[in-house]
Amino acid sequence: MDQNVTWWKFDEVETFMRAGFEAVGVPDFEAKSCAEVLIAADQRGVDSHGVGRYKPIYLDRIWAGIQNPKTNFDVVKETPTTAVIDGHNGMGLYIATRAMEMAIEKADKYGLGMTVVRNSTHYGAAFYYARMAVENGMIGMTTTNARPSIAPTWGVEPMLGTNPMTWGMPSDEDFPFMLDCATSVTQRGKLELYDRLGKDLPDGWVIGQDGSYRHDTKQVLVDLTKDLAALTPLGGQGEDLGGYKGYGYGTDLHPRRERA
Amino acid sequence: MDQNVTWWKFDEVETFMRAGFEAVGVPDFEAKSCAEVLIAADQRGVDSHGVGRYKPIYLDRIWAGIQNPKTNFDVVKETPTTAVIDGHNGMGLYIATRAMEMAIEKADKYGLGMTVVRNSTHYGAAFYYARMAVENGMIGMTTTNARPSIAPTWGVEPMLGTNPMTWGMPSDEDFPFMLDCATSVTQRGKLELYDRLGKDLPDGWVIGQDGSYRHDTKQVLVDLTKDLAALTPLGGQGEDLGGYKGYGYGTDLHPRRERA
Repeated sequence: MDQNVTWWKFDEVETFMRAGFEAVGVPDFEAKSCAEVLIAADQRGVDSHGVGRYKPIYLDRIWAGIQNPKTNFDVVKETPTTAVIDGHNGMGLYIATRAMEMAIEKADKYGLGMTVVRNSTHYGAAFYYARMAVENGMIGMTTTNARPSIAPTWGVEPMLGTNPMTWGMPSDEDFPFMLDCATSVTQRGKLELYDRLGKDLPDGWVIGQDGSYRHDTKQVLVDLTKDLAALTPLGGQGEDLGGYKGYGYGTDLHPRRERA
Repeated sequence: MDQNVTWWKFDEVETFMRAGFEAVGVPDFEAKSCAEVLIAADQRGVDSHGVGRYKPIYLDRIWAGIQNPKTNFDVVKETPTTAVIDGHNGMGLYIATRAMEMAIEKADKYGLGMTVVRNSTHYGAAFYYARMAVENGMIGMTTTNARPSIAPTWGVEPMLGTNPMTWGMPSDEDFPFMLDCATSVTQRGKLELYDRLGKDLPDGWVIGQDGSYRHDTKQVLVDLTKDLAALTPLGGQGEDLGGYKGYGYGTDLHPRRERA
């Protein structure tokens, strides 16, 4: 074991995160729920969505006043099988957990259940919520939008998020079928990894303002935040490899405004 | 207008198809329903799934005894929101229409509805069924499996169908949002077009037994039927452009055996 690395047990990290969340005003039950979602990502090896984001995403946003530590979970509309929830910019991790619990309860009673949330915040690793359904013997599906980072086919301006399409299904193996991936070729976390490794980006991942591929990893990470570069949809740029399909899926999963 | 082309009105083609279906034993109401699905594809410009397939897919399969002209639509299981239907290898176009009608009725009453069919046959253009939901003010989703033609990531043997993922949603435009595409980079119909145009295939569409791209269109069309060539999943071969995502989506949509 590397002597320069400090190893923490998962339950220690969880206790640490819960205490931190409570310190910034997240009520204890909600702090527990949020910490669990983040730990679950690390336990599954999804480092990009685990404790590494505890401070840079969640605490920073609470401190910046973008996200409320206390969640006001508000059911706006409800049918036997569906509900529209307003999360009032509370803790996305907790809002999504409760929203999936509601969907599961409805599915348990009526065969299908689906809930949608408005005014939520970053909900972490999507697989967690689909897996909740699996743990109840059900097929689970979840999606969310994300900040614009993907250019539509034939465009160069970031318009779509890396909107994931995520499923979980019970299987006859010892593990369920789980699929959790973005509708883009790649995502920012992978570019950050390339930056740490000092590697250039390959063709097909990022396009610049002139519509040609960008390879300069470090500057791409800066330019992405300024909308001067964009990720490609799954299938890549243009039509050759079916990029319009990834564009379609990403658009499809982009939550729409409610009809009047 | 090209003097060598005979132009038929849509209602003439529909009458022709209905009469033909009835002649091979499809009951009149079901023949009408099947003809409508095929005409709808041509009207939308989806020539690959319209009248061009009337004889090669539907009549040939009925004559070969693969498909029954008379449909026995059998509800095996039912809950308020779901149903499992056995189509007994009847007319897929008619079975899917009725299955979507059932899903719509359930959604109208309970908020959500979903039906699945076993022992169905080729159901034509998927958009038709999603659009039925849209015409009833609902979001529609449909998928189906297909014969194995796509190699999994890092494989060369065709294992997955071009399983489409198809949605329709009402919009605030004059037309709905419709997305109907295969979970592969391309599909056989496009290769047939390249063959007619005498064009070689580009990199990324088809892989051969040695794992490298094939470009010889005519021979690829032969080899695909012998499992000696395979289409790539959306995202292409390997991992560079996220081909494992298309592989995942295609797998996800592959209907599973019912649990005992």
